[in-house]
Amino acid sequence: MKQYIGDISERAVGSTVELAGWVHVRRNMGKLVFVDLRDSTGIMQIVCVPQELDEASRTAAEELRPEYVVHISGSVQKRSAKQVNVAMSTGTIEVLAKTIQIVSKAKTPPFEIENEDRQANEELRLQYRYLDLRHERLSKTMRMRHRVMQFVRNYLSEKGFVEIQTPILSKSTPEGARDYLVPSRLHKGKFFALPQSPQQYKQLLMVAGFERYFQIAPCFRDEDARADRSPGEFYQIDMEMSFVTQDDILALTEKIFIDLAHELFPEKTITKEPFPRLNYADVMKQYGTDKPDLRNDTTNPNELAFAWIVNFPLFVKQTNEDHFHGAGKTWAPSHHMFTAPRPEDVALLDSNPGQVRGLQHDLVLNGFEIGGGSVRIHDPAVQQKVFDLIGFTEQQKKQFQHMLTAFEYGVPPHGGIAPGLDRLIMILAGEKNLREVTAFPLTNDGRDPMMDSPSEVEKGQLEELGIALKKK
Amino acid sequence: MKQYIGDISERAVGSTVELAGWVHVRRNMGKLVFVDLRDSTGIMQIVCVPQELDEASRTAAEELRPEYVVHISGSVQKRSAKQVNVAMSTGTIEVLAKTIQIVSKAKTPPFEIENEDRQANEELRLQYRYLDLRHERLSKTMRMRHRVMQFVRNYLSEKGFVEIQTPILSKSTPEGARDYLVPSRLHKGKFFALPQSPQQYKQLLMVAGFERYFQIAPCFRDEDARADRSPGEFYQIDMEMSFVTQDDILALTEKIFIDLAHELFPEKTITKEPFPRLNYADVMKQYGTDKPDLRNDTTNPNELAFAWIVNFPLFVKQTNEDHFHGAGKTWAPSHHMFTAPRPEDVALLDSNPGQVRGLQHDLVLNGFEIGGGSVRIHDPAVQQKVFDLIGFTEQQKKQFQHMLTAFEYGVPPHGGIAPGLDRLIMILAGEKNLREVTAFPLTNDGRDPMMDSPSEVEKGQLEELGIALKKK
Repeated sequence: MKQYIGDISERAVGSTVELAGWVHVRRNMGKLVFVDLRDSTGIMQIVCVPQELDEASRTAAEELRPEYVVHISGSVQKRSAKQVNVAMSTGTIEVLAKTIQIVSKAKTPPFEIENEDRQANEELRLQYRYLDLRHERLSKTMRMRHRVMQFVRNYLSEKGFVEIQTPILSKSTPEGARDYLVPSRLHKGKFFALPQSPQQYKQLLMVAGFERYFQIAPCFRDEDARADRSPGEFYQIDMEMSFVTQDDILALTEKIFIDLAHELFPEKTITKEPFPRLNYADVMKQYGTDKPDLRNDTTNPNELAFAWIVNFPLFVKQTNEDHFHGAGKTWAPSHHMFTAPRPEDVALLDSNPGQVRGLQHDLVLNGFEIGGGSVRIHDPAVQQKVFDLIGFTEQQKKQFQHMLTAFEYGVPPHGGIAPGLDRLIMILAGEKNLREVTAFPLTNDGRDPMMDSPSEVEKGQLEELGIALKKK
Repeated sequence: MKQYIGDISERAVGSTVELAGWVHVRRNMGKLVFVDLRDSTGIMQIVCVPQELDEASRTAAEELRPEYVVHISGSVQKRSAKQVNVAMSTGTIEVLAKTIQIVSKAKTPPFEIENEDRQANEELRLQYRYLDLRHERLSKTMRMRHRVMQFVRNYLSEKGFVEIQTPILSKSTPEGARDYLVPSRLHKGKFFALPQSPQQYKQLLMVAGFERYFQIAPCFRDEDARADRSPGEFYQIDMEMSFVTQDDILALTEKIFIDLAHELFPEKTITKEPFPRLNYADVMKQYGTDKPDLRNDTTNPNELAFAWIVNFPLFVKQTNEDHFHGAGKTWAPSHHMFTAPRPEDVALLDSNPGQVRGLQHDLVLNGFEIGGGSVRIHDPAVQQKVFDLIGFTEQQKKQFQHMLTAFEYGVPPHGGIAPGLDRLIMILAGEKNLREVTAFPLTNDGRDPMMDSPSEVEKGQLEELGIALKKK
């Protein structure tokens, strides 16, 4: 098996290595050819001296072009003093090639891999995403995303949280955003919906007695794109706990993010610990937004200004953007319809719903909301009242009957939070766009230019599903 | 915050504890009431002595019924000798209740939680899945599933694999099984498809240069249920590697399963190490199946008989079950259309395709196929030839154009394997059905009786998507 460039250090000087990867740069220096060979772990300078190579390898060295895939064997040697490159982790060594074999050739890429052009046409980048991902910046971001996920999973696992996968073929309920629908073949005329979040499942897992659940969960909302929201799918670090207060949830979450920052991002500093806890009303008055950027220096990407926003109103006025299909009344939930009112405000549900504060908590980072959560309603009577205030019809309430039924069989008090993974990674990576932290994102208008999806399908597929396209 | 029962041992004798959980069993013993209190970590015997309790707690102790949720404070004491229960981890201690508070009441569950009835009506169990999951057996299986996932993720992460999430809103391609479709609202008349596997994405990640990728990936096939296949969604431990031989893939995979078994299932023994590697032709002749049960004692659930099956034919005859919509020719891929032929058999692609063996490998465990994989085609010309042998039209080939294009920009040789997580857990847990290892499974006919999905949706939802139900 090949060796990885990242595993080769000065200690290997004098030994023979087998490398494989992509030609990053090829430089012809008179008789010598220098190749920067790139693999997933680093870049190694290869020196090709014609008289050291057999004929096939000599020809190969001549033919090499950027992005060719090659196998190279050779001996590790120290670079001469003037060749040393302190900016590279392998900058003091190089490999004197013995054999060079072209594994596969490459056409000239539509954009440069070595020098990324941040102004390159995004449509083109997405069409050739497999080349775009070769850029060091994107490749590093994907690896960082992986480390963050593993950190969170191990952290929560050690604290007794159980990761449980909840269904992706789920049910359409009027939860606030527009659902993606999946027609059922076996039950024609009926549809699954992709989950807007695992909200109901995680609450049912609390009823099931798991007490501590998490999942890095795919979520789906068929909404138009916003700067900090992708169309299509996104991931949330979904956590739910039983027998906890809002303080418990905040304390645990805060600890995760502090430990994460210290362990994985030692170059970053957290502006204020413990995180400030700000009232929604105060923060709106002071900053005019519920996601203020509290950095001391808002141009410093290595500053992490976390804050909690609490005491949100439980309800806001319903707008056209709410997808409570057919709900005719005034109120929409500020967070979602399962958020508990503050106990001291429950009486106001009847007299003055607009004054009720909820046990909602938003985590804000550098001017972005990176996670929202709440203590949930666990009293079926209160849940019914919230449904009524939203204006749900009996039919709409029936779509949540399983929740109300479940709460009759011994429900623990519970709550949680669901930090958005993509938005968190975007901020940590200093990116301005969620597409930069997603391996294969959709465009703003919901297309994948690489796969050319969504796409037309065969007539037979629609027939099997019992659906037809509407005439325009 | 409450304490967890699993954290309380004999060392806590004499101290006061705060517990919360569910009433597992309540036994009235004359003046005394014994309660087995269950939380997510264990069961604790609670002794309620009327004269030790205040009036509210005394009343609560009387009212308690199975599955009530309660807060209990009390002092830990040693059990009297005749009360010791060696079968329980907390069997030598008990808590003398000081206060008892009912948090929420429970109706009588439709089936017993304490003594699981394995013959209980499955429809009822799925309808009340949040109660079914309270059964010790299911709860343990979900925790074991979590441990297996974390083991695999940490194992692969340490070996330099990067976990990358690939799209769930993907493209419909004629890949072998029937796709679930998702109508696009922004591009009416077009559809996303849920991925049958991340096959194309993971190969494109190899083109992108990641070299070692993994993901515990949700996969979707709209197939009718089989004993060892769920309708709807399932998870695979998806791994792909560059610059590897089939031997490298087999060796790594084998090591993961051996280490997993040793670490998480010390009570189990592996029948044969290294895993036997059997030729497809031989195994069919000897056992009449390509997934033989090679245990020495097929009644022993703690015996794990792994084996590799290799040298499958690259093609089988096309049948009506293949969803190569419109493909008219004779051949269907034995594994999938991206599997490479054995190098020495490539010439046979023209003369005798039925004789070509593929670089496919199946991992078999106790009579089940728990994972398939292959070295992939990375030569666009060979890929074209395979498409032709399947009988793809130009239109169908065009649906894979992005793969053929990608292979022109420097593709490394690559391959992988994708063990099925659900089936693996099923065997490790000694279960006979995939629904027993899935938190919220669908029924065999593709319904969720708890959520009542799939369900009818509002007319407006379909109008927004530009689709209509076909008249029957």
